Amino acid sequence: MVLWLIGLGLYDENDITLRGLQAVRKCSRVYLEAYTSILLCNKEKLEELYGREVIVADREMVESEAEKILKDADKEDVAFLVVGDPFGATTHTDLQLRARQQGIPVKVVHNASIMNAVGACGLQLYRFGESISIVFFTDTWRPDSFYDRIRDNRRAGVHTLCLLDIKVKEPNLEKLARGRVVYEPPRYMSVNTAVEQLLEVESRRGEGAYGPDTLAIGIARLQADDQLIVAAPMSELQGIDFGAPLHSLVIAGSVHVMEEEMIECFRIHNQPGLKPYTPPVAASDDECGL
Amino acid sequence: MVLWLIGLGLYDENDITLRGLQAVRKCSRVYLEAYTSILLCNKEKLEELYGREVIVADREMVESEAEKILKDADKEDVAFLVVGDPFGATTHTDLQLRARQQGIPVKVVHNASIMNAVGACGLQLYRFGESISIVFFTDTWRPDSFYDRIRDNRRAGVHTLCLLDIKVKEPNLEKLARGRVVYEPPRYMSVNTAVEQLLEVESRRGEGAYGPDTLAIGIARLQADDQLIVAAPMSELQGIDFGAPLHSLVIAGSVHVMEEEMIECFRIHNQPGLKPYTPPVAASDDECGL
Repeated sequence: MVLWLIGLGLYDENDITLRGLQAVRKCSRVYLEAYTSILLCNKEKLEELYGREVIVADREMVESEAEKILKDADKEDVAFLVVGDPFGATTHTDLQLRARQQGIPVKVVHNASIMNAVGACGLQLYRFGESISIVFFTDTWRPDSFYDRIRDNRRAGVHTLCLLDIKVKEPNLEKLARGRVVYEPPRYMSVNTAVEQLLEVESRRGEGAYGPDTLAIGIARLQADDQLIVAAPMSELQGIDFGAPLHSLVIAGSVHVMEEEMIECFRIHNQPGLKPYTPPVAASDDECGL
Repeated sequence: MVLWLIGLGLYDENDITLRGLQAVRKCSRVYLEAYTSILLCNKEKLEELYGREVIVADREMVESEAEKILKDADKEDVAFLVVGDPFGATTHTDLQLRARQQGIPVKVVHNASIMNAVGACGLQLYRFGESISIVFFTDTWRPDSFYDRIRDNRRAGVHTLCLLDIKVKEPNLEKLARGRVVYEPPRYMSVNTAVEQLLEVESRRGEGAYGPDTLAIGIARLQADDQLIVAAPMSELQGIDFGAPLHSLVIAGSVHVMEEEMIECFRIHNQPGLKPYTPPVAASDDECGL
């Protein structure tokens, strides 16, 4: 019948739309994409709300077992739930193309994602340039292709949304080499790690795309009751504890007067309750915990 | 208590989130912002769903009677409903700033808006540059400040979302001059008018930012059952009837392979049921009707 791609929104089970809920309750199978972003509630809450079993689809399943997800979707409705909006990540594009090739109609239920909700940080949405992704650096892999884009955005005076890495169900490579599949605990990049990596890249590239004094805005748990938005120079953001995931970061371009007024309430001096950030002892654990 | 800014999403009463619905049902007064965008259902449907009277707030009210909206919001919950996401338009920024200045807490319920749902057109969201707005040209006012931004986006290879003008409750200037306030019927810019104005500006400016052969994507009634997305050179888009509002337009930058695959199904040759566009006789009526 239909493959439904349903956006779940930003935070928990309550962020689905009425349209989305009506659709998911009609579906015979319900998959939850859980590796490009995560919902900060457990699967049981979703199952209770939907009255349906929810099958967690990890990267492996979506990329190599797409046929299983699409099975019988020409005869019955199948839901593929995506945190945020269904068009936030490229992976779902592939699933959609496969469905179409098989003549399965695809319907989409949109929802908020960080790509538009980032307007909550006080900078005007239409003044954002291309967004970038920052992945966790490893000893041997420290990719900095985002640098050119931030530089170009900043030179054009526009803001840059930085999407921060999420590692869910990643196999431990050491154990994999010894023939055992053991998954690492999930990791979510913190604002602190993102700024640290960004400043490392700037000191390597040295083109002055941004620096410790550049205004940036850290965002944590958008749409949650305890969401946190802090505007400060990058060096100062590093000293703030943003708490539990998910985090995002905005690097400001030129800031207009009304934007300045809006971000004023997110400045450190206007948020007396902020906690200082204490970097964890083990360097590999410097992400925010769930 | 709280000023709630609640996003209603893209299309009708079913696009509100559960979180938004819970909030609006707790509010003692409910305002609906109805001039930067519109919901394609009538107010009564909203009132029935919310169990609340809905007060339509036009531009005049939000801009000059903000105090009325905020009245007693320190004692009771007040909802300000916005089509799309609350951070889609700058007007709400002002209301938010006023609330904060008066010590009224502001809570936001996010939702989809064209700014992220435009990903439905098949082009990757992170590859969009700054978005632009196109207003209805008049005999004496034909602003083309968007031209530079489209040019810069296209040179950088990124896509441009064009937000199309909406005129709701605009006074008839001729009658106003004679001392009578008579409102014009609402007007919503069509993809056809947008392309026509864009091509006029290109022939005036002549810098080759885009042209009749440039790939563009027209979008109508996103999230509705009869939503329409058509990808074609600008000159061909002009010949397609997109039907009822709201319309948006995307001007493509460089198109990646996967994007090409995604937009293929939106090409004219893959949509046999498209209707040809017949321009209305009176030049001033060339917008799409509701």
